[in-house]
Amino acid sequence: MTDTNTNNDSIEQLNERLTRFARDRDWEQFHSPKNLSMALIAEAAELVEHFQWLSEEQSYNLSEEKHEEVSLELADILIYLIRTAERLDIDLLKAAWRKVEINESRYPVEKVSGSAKRAEEYDL
Amino acid sequence: MTDTNTNNDSIEQLNERLTRFARDRDWEQFHSPKNLSMALIAEAAELVEHFQWLSEEQSYNLSEEKHEEVSLELADILIYLIRTAERLDIDLLKAAWRKVEINESRYPVEKVSGSAKRAEEYDL
Amino acid sequence: MTDTNTNNDSIEQLNERLTRFARDRDWEQFHSPKNLSMALIAEAAELVEHFQWLSEEQSYNLSEEKHEEVSLELADILIYLIRTAERLDIDLLKAAWRKVEINESRYPVEKVSGSAKRAEEYDL
Amino acid sequence: MTDTNTNNDSIEQLNERLTRFARDRDWEQFHSPKNLSMALIAEAAELVEHFQWLSEEQSYNLSEEKHEEVSLELADILIYLIRTAERLDIDLLKAAWRKVEINESRYPVEKVSGSAKRAEEYDL
Repeated sequence: MTDTNTNNDSIEQLNERLTRFARDRDWEQFHSPKNLSMALIAEAAELVEHFQWLSEEQSYNLSEEKHEEVSLELADILIYLIRTAERLDIDLLKAAWRKVEINESRYPVEKVSGSAKRAEEYDL
Repeated sequence: MTDTNTNNDSIEQLNERLTRFARDRDWEQFHSPKNLSMALIAEAAELVEHFQWLSEEQSYNLSEEKHEEVSLELADILIYLIRTAERLDIDLLKAAWRKVEINESRYPVEKVSGSAKRAEEYDL
Repeated sequence: MTDTNTNNDSIEQLNERLTRFARDRDWEQFHSPKNLSMALIAEAAELVEHFQWLSEEQSYNLSEEKHEEVSLELADILIYLIRTAERLDIDLLKAAWRKVEINESRYPVEKVSGSAKRAEEYDL
Repeated sequence: MTDTNTNNDSIEQLNERLTRFARDRDWEQFHSPKNLSMALIAEAAELVEHFQWLSEEQSYNLSEEKHEEVSLELADILIYLIRTAERLDIDLLKAAWRKVEINESRYPVEKVSGSAKRAEEYDL
């Protein structure tokens, strides 16, 4: 029996557990925002590596084993994301909502529908 | 006035909004897991870019402007992380809790305290 | 005995010019291997960004403008690669030839033909 | 007129060997520029991973074993860089010299000496 609560969708609970994890191991000394950004991108690359030789279609249809591996890569990314936010005193969800609103006004439906480009290529 | 609720810490609400955002723009066709992993790592790299010439100490002490920019980079990463999870039907928070437990048993306090290595270098 | 040619005159000239560039600007202080690895991956991500919403087929058929942008992204990656090698006193071309030979023995034609997986998935 | 030497004989030899390697294994079908950009960034991340918990100073002073591992990571990056250039018919060294000249005019010594920022932060 553990004290995890997988029903609770709180990023905050995860943050507390991760902070405790780092403190208990005396790892906070390594967890500068600079270092965490490196750890985060290394995990993002492990995700990329799963997909690099797959077609887009294949990337939807993973074997059960691959699906579980990919789930844990996503978890690793989230973990380092939460750690980085914690070290910089950033409210991750608030920032995400702020960014959603920016995106919604930056990419109006009628201007961008069905066309994916890099942001700077849209002439809005 | 918007319908955002920044008090609510639900990843699920964010997921719904982001899915709607993609659908409204007919962008789901581009959002294969493969492509999203690329977008995710590109955002992770923008985070890295903020820190690449800073010392670890400087990376804690960002100007207000930099802090806001970094907040929005973290937001971008979270957004693509949620999108990837959605496309693969992965419960991101459940996966994170599962990974936390794996890490806690993989790195026992008494074995790893104060020493940061790559996982494979620990002789546990 | 192999037919490798580690006579790296042109990489070497580039290396000298880049070292001079950094010294002239008093930038060597920022060019630790750690920092350069961050700069390198940030450039690699700019390459990825060009391709993230393209199909594989589209990624072969770039407009002239895109082709030039991608050329300069590749150049940026090579530049930071050479800088990193210089800081660590690594002979980049010798290392590459060494790695080619490792790959050739790790992936025998008759075992891997037509099947791309992550290295650890091959049961060789 | 510059003193550049775009005579890229040694990169060219490597390119030929790598192209043959891919053809012999029927792997060219997987080597779209899109896929290669993913493989390249995954290798760049393995480099980053070596340095993520090291101080900048430690990143200069690697053990012999680490130094060899890092050499092979640099090799992997160069290999995918050459492959990507080959697929897009880009002359890597010519592009690098072109970029060096751009950088030299973009960052004049007297304006940027001793100060490392992201390019867009320089008010030149």
